[in-house]
Formats: sequence, structure tokens, C-alpha cells
Amino acid sequence: MVDKDIRQDGDANQSRHKQRQQKLKQQVDEKIDAAQQEKGLLLVITGNGKGKTTAGFGTVARAVGHGQQCGVAQFIKGTWDNGEKNLLEKLGVEFHVMATGFTWETQDKEADTRAALEVWEQCEAMLSNPSLDVVLLDELTYMVAYGYVELDRVTQALSRRPAEQSVIITGRAAHRTLIDMADTVSEVKNVKHAFESGIKARKGVDW
Amino acid sequence: MVDKDIRQDGDANQSRHKQRQQKLKQQVDEKIDAAQQEKGLLLVITGNGKGKTTAGFGTVARAVGHGQQCGVAQFIKGTWDNGEKNLLEKLGVEFHVMATGFTWETQDKEADTRAALEVWEQCEAMLSNPSLDVVLLDELTYMVAYGYVELDRVTQALSRRPAEQSVIITGRAAHRTLIDMADTVSEVKNVKHAFESGIKARKGVDW
Repeated sequence: MVDKDIRQDGDANQSRHKQRQQKLKQQVDEKIDAAQQEKGLLLVITGNGKGKTTAGFGTVARAVGHGQQCGVAQFIKGTWDNGEKNLLEKLGVEFHVMATGFTWETQDKEADTRAALEVWEQCEAMLSNPSLDVVLLDELTYMVAYGYVELDRVTQALSRRPAEQSVIITGRAAHRTLIDMADTVSEVKNVKHAFESGIKARKGVDW
Repeated sequence: MVDKDIRQDGDANQSRHKQRQQKLKQQVDEKIDAAQQEKGLLLVITGNGKGKTTAGFGTVARAVGHGQQCGVAQFIKGTWDNGEKNLLEKLGVEFHVMATGFTWETQDKEADTRAALEVWEQCEAMLSNPSLDVVLLDELTYMVAYGYVELDRVTQALSRRPAEQSVIITGRAAHRTLIDMADTVSEVKNVKHAFESGIKARKGVDW
């Protein structure tokens, strides 16, 4: 009897699980059926947590894995050895890296603006190149926030880009207008960071 | 006079910018000096927004770009064509993918548990392999939440892993204990998602 009770409980559990999962599946299937519009997406990944740039590069890696053509612009990255660039440039991804490194290493607004605009012009070229499937504009948000690149130039280039091209913009404090324009927006919030506990930035994880 | 005034305003602006940036640089430099502990990190990337898995894979791409050895386990991913696997497996990354796809495609708790444990055993092997620099446990959080893999088995394997090994765990609703154990935790919040506006999941961006 005991065995049978347990078995019946197990069966009831299994049945409840099945019902729950079936409902979930139905909901997801309905959403998938409803989502039929096909176009290049604008993704904005903002917030103060770790993972924005890596999410951008993960998406580029995913697209490269499908044989797609990708371009990357990196604003305010250092001039140090860069794991993602090492890998993806070898795989045919077009790369443009701002020359000055973190702006607080330079502290010269005019020089920063020049360096930012130089990379931004490459971005405009990528955003008008229909052979690029995915374009990553890494840390672009700061360029807009600091006034190095005008918001209008950014929104124009985004609006006029090829219809099939997807664009990912990363960086803290994305401008409201970019968030409004975007199809998908994620905010990466810092819950905690190893750095705050005195743990050193690590090759392969942090850079 | 007007020209000179403008120039002086410009100089004052430039000087304020410089002061602000210098202060920022000082703060960052102090933090960098303070952060001297070197060890493998545990990263948890959780939350309901898009970008958790791609952040995990971006970190793996970064590590591969530095010539590091990486391993990946993917729980509840579909059996469909997978951009990141296509690319990274070719580059020597060890891959273990759960066979059943999304659990709501199967709706069978026992079969899901068996499939999850099969992949988890591969995870335990990776977490005791000192030649792996970075291990990604993609969507592991669900396995714990659904009770497919016991939390204790996960925490034990994480605690006993090689000191130099970094681990990234992704997925919604990470268990409190995993968050407490982690060195760095980011919560990716959904601000909006293209899917909700009827836009179809896109190759190279969504999968």
C-alpha cells in the first residue's frame, strides 16, 4: 500500500509538472506564432553591471558561427591585449578601436573628441554597408553622453542602415532616445563585483 | 573680444573636464592598486533580460582569444543549429549540450532529470579539470530551480574546483546560495524585447 501511495503521489507530481509545462509551452508557442515580423534588430545593452561588452561579443561570435559578416567598433577600450579582438579579427570580423584608451588616461576633451569621431566615421561606413549582418558599437553610449559624438548623427545613421542589419549598442547610461529607438533593451545591474572585494581583474574574464 | 571670450569659456570647460577626468582616474587607479588578490572567479549572470547567455559566450570567446582552454555545458538549449557552438567547438572548446531541448518540448520530469544529470556529470568532470581556465554552465540555474540537479552537488563541485579556474553560471532566478558564493553577480533586466512587439527571433542575434 505504502509503495502504491508513493507511486500515486509520484504520478500526481508528474502529472502536475506535465500540465504546468504544457501551459508554458502553449504560451511560448502562441508568442512564437505571433512574432512574424522579420528585420534587423537594434539591441541596447546598458546598466552598471558586468556583462554588457561580453554580451555584445557573444552575439558577434554567434553570428560568425552562422557564417554572417560582422563589424565592431570599440570606443574607450584600452590599447592593451584584447581577447575578443585577437579571436574575432582572425575570423574576418572588421574591427575599429578608438586609439586613446580610457578617456581618463588622456583627460583631453579635444583629443578624445577627435579620436571618437575618427571611429564614429568608420561606424557610419559600417552602418551603410549592406554586406554586414551584425554591427557592434561597443561603449558608444559614453561618446554620446560626453558629447564627443552628436546624438543626431547616431540616430540618423541607425535609421538609414540596411533593413536586414542588426546593431548592438553597449555601455552605461544609454541615452533615452537610443532606448526608445531600440527593439530590445536590457539593463545589466551590478549586484556585486569581484573588484569591490579586492580581487584583481583577470585575463580571459575581465579583458 | 567675443572670440577671446569664447576661447576663455572653452578653456574653462576644458579645465573642468580635465579636473573631473583626473579625479575619476585617481579613483579608478586606487581601486586597481587595492585589488591584488588573484584567483579564478565565479560569475553569476541572472535576471529576465536578453544577454545572459551571450555574455557567457562572449567571455568564453575572450578567453579563447587569449589562448585559454574553455569548456561549456548548455542546459535546456534546443537541438537546433547553434551559432556559438558552431564557432567555439571548431576552436577547441569542449561542449556538452543537454539532449532534450527546452523542457516544455518534452514535459517529462523524469526524462528531463536524466538528461540534466548526464550533462551535470560532464560539468563535474570539467570543474575538476585543472587544464580548463574558464567553464561556462549556461542555464544551469533552471536545473537547480526545477530540482533536476541538487544544489549541494553544484556548490560542492564549485567549491572544490581548481583555484585558478573561472566559472560563469547563467540563467534566470539564480539560487540565493549561488549568488552568495559568487565573486561577481550581474542581473540582466528586461527593459523591452523585440519579441513582445511581434518581431521574429533572428538568426545571429537570438540563436
